[in-house]
Amino acid sequence: MNISTLERHRQQFPGLRDKAYFNYGGQGPMPEAAIAAILQSYQQIQALGPFSNKAYAWVIEQMEALRREIATELGTSPEFMTLTENVSMGCNIALWGINWQPGDHLLLTDCEHHSVIATGQEIQRRFGIEVSTCPLRATLNQGSPVEAIARHLKPNTRLVALSHILWNTGQVLPLGEIVSVCHRHPGRYPIRVLVDAAQSVGVMPLCLDELQADFYAFTGHKWWCGPEGLGGLYIRPEVRDELHPTFIGWRGITTDGTGYPTGWKLDGRRYEVATSAFPLLAGLRAAIALHCQWGTPQERYQRIQMLSHYLWEQLVNVPQISCLRQFPPEAGLVSFQLMNKSHKQLVQWLENQNVMVRMILSPDCVRACVHYFTLESEIDQLVSCLRSLVAVVQ
Amino acid sequence: MNISTLERHRQQFPGLRDKAYFNYGGQGPMPEAAIAAILQSYQQIQALGPFSNKAYAWVIEQMEALRREIATELGTSPEFMTLTENVSMGCNIALWGINWQPGDHLLLTDCEHHSVIATGQEIQRRFGIEVSTCPLRATLNQGSPVEAIARHLKPNTRLVALSHILWNTGQVLPLGEIVSVCHRHPGRYPIRVLVDAAQSVGVMPLCLDELQADFYAFTGHKWWCGPEGLGGLYIRPEVRDELHPTFIGWRGITTDGTGYPTGWKLDGRRYEVATSAFPLLAGLRAAIALHCQWGTPQERYQRIQMLSHYLWEQLVNVPQISCLRQFPPEAGLVSFQLMNKSHKQLVQWLENQNVMVRMILSPDCVRACVHYFTLESEIDQLVSCLRSLVAVVQ
Repeated sequence: MNISTLERHRQQFPGLRDKAYFNYGGQGPMPEAAIAAILQSYQQIQALGPFSNKAYAWVIEQMEALRREIATELGTSPEFMTLTENVSMGCNIALWGINWQPGDHLLLTDCEHHSVIATGQEIQRRFGIEVSTCPLRATLNQGSPVEAIARHLKPNTRLVALSHILWNTGQVLPLGEIVSVCHRHPGRYPIRVLVDAAQSVGVMPLCLDELQADFYAFTGHKWWCGPEGLGGLYIRPEVRDELHPTFIGWRGITTDGTGYPTGWKLDGRRYEVATSAFPLLAGLRAAIALHCQWGTPQERYQRIQMLSHYLWEQLVNVPQISCLRQFPPEAGLVSFQLMNKSHKQLVQWLENQNVMVRMILSPDCVRACVHYFTLESEIDQLVSCLRSLVAVVQ
Repeated sequence: MNISTLERHRQQFPGLRDKAYFNYGGQGPMPEAAIAAILQSYQQIQALGPFSNKAYAWVIEQMEALRREIATELGTSPEFMTLTENVSMGCNIALWGINWQPGDHLLLTDCEHHSVIATGQEIQRRFGIEVSTCPLRATLNQGSPVEAIARHLKPNTRLVALSHILWNTGQVLPLGEIVSVCHRHPGRYPIRVLVDAAQSVGVMPLCLDELQADFYAFTGHKWWCGPEGLGGLYIRPEVRDELHPTFIGWRGITTDGTGYPTGWKLDGRRYEVATSAFPLLAGLRAAIALHCQWGTPQERYQRIQMLSHYLWEQLVNVPQISCLRQFPPEAGLVSFQLMNKSHKQLVQWLENQNVMVRMILSPDCVRACVHYFTLESEIDQLVSCLRSLVAVVQ
């Protein structure tokens, strides 16, 4: 890797200037080309329409192009893809779309985002289902997450909801094996697997057609560095007919000659609702294109891993800092704790120096993310800030 | 009204250049200031963060400012306001949030948008409720919509869903009276009223605190000329506790010190889900500010009415054209039919001449919308196109 090539690549992200940025798991910085594409879309829609046959055709074209490009990146087909506003929307579509009966079981893990947990709580209340939590946090350094999940499946389990990469500890779950265990489980229902892919899409090479997860919910605004407010949900075609749309609008339905609703669109569009921020489509397209231009998903992931190893190795040598993981991290998230110091204050103190990490409440820790275009010098800066703080604390 | 003042005002809308635009009910043209504000928001977020305490504080500030400004425009308080992606999302929040029991009755009208009808169909299937349709179309020229609604209420009616201004015929419903009839109805439940306000917000002066509708769902991208993908839902505070959130995420919930969900935010935010296209907030703010700068809601509505009367008067004098309404229109929507001609072809033919109207399927007609900044010369152009077509057809 030529540093000057990387520097040139980074210059396309105005958000990276004057910062050491480690919050890709929260929101990625947008490349200038993405912002420019959004602006151009607004201008194009104004020039064409904005409500006209021409503008509508142009928006549909953008939408289908993005659907194709996302499908290519994720190793699946565009017709299995639903465009959504964010990860939570994708998870909600899957969670609410199941024909829950009282007594059915939903299995979550103890490392899920509070958005998913809260949705599970409300579905429990609405439909009288049982919700339980599988402990996965303890498998970060020893034991098997696959066995943990297997032990928590019940005869009445209908859905398992978990993350591909855990947002708090950075652990990468062996999703293929977990899906296989769930799908083979002899229970009352064929068990479906919903994946919160907030931290995996844009990070690791993916082939959803092989993974066979039933629902895979992601966003464009984190590791893909697209605009906030645009994401997607992959639904395995075999389960589409059993998953009913919940929130409904003109984008998902079919109508007869009088405009009366007659049913659902045949593909992933059936879960899409109504008018969205369509100019964002071109923004995400531009962001994805930029990553592809830099390298293949494999090349990018290798670099993420190389850099997170580097960060982890630096951190374990700082006194009073302990990494949650006892081995080098698998992906781009590195979580650590600092003894005798409020993590909230630490994050704010780092932000004041333009070093951006985030706090996680459970487990109580600080999370730093590295992307393929992170600089080793940025990592050095973060570690040196932490070292200077530790020196003061001592 | 000074024409040069109006021309200057119109110059702020790039979408109006070289067009005669009559699709405000579909999507309004965005003022340049709104596009600029969105661009500036993207740049600001990149400069601050994009995921940082500073950027988050800035987004929250924008969100609360927009909530206040919308509430002021609609005559209510910001805490009753939920920000949504579009009208359909607002309607879905209300429709799914009710604690439906088998046998409960949902009353729609025969003039509702297919998005709402399709949602009603699915809720009927899910919860075993009864859905029926009140004929309002027939009251466009005679009879009372209030009496029609009253006649269709049943002892088991739980929700009435209707539009404030009918999107197909342009009729303005006497919403206050309808709400009052519904609220006074002696049935099993206190009847709630959900209003599709797609065609009323940004058109007529509104005081939601006085109207007392229970749910009022609107969008910023039609008559307000804001960006597509941002709207809102007013929920009357008295019904908030009975309306449960359906689609759920971090924006709507409260959490404890470990990040675990403990309940809902107390105000309208409880129905908001997760990351949205936050830069759009500034865009809608700029659009609303521009309208306020031009005149009060009363002044704008008077001008809309004056212009729609003018359009209607011209149209009734064109041979082979009949307006759906036998009297001058009440608001900005004017629907008409052209004998012996496909309305679809007509709309396309007009668009080819940069005259933009839309087709409606039920009743089969063409809809032209005028805004307060429509020019009489634009109306003349539309009418002259229609006259020339009629001459050819004859």
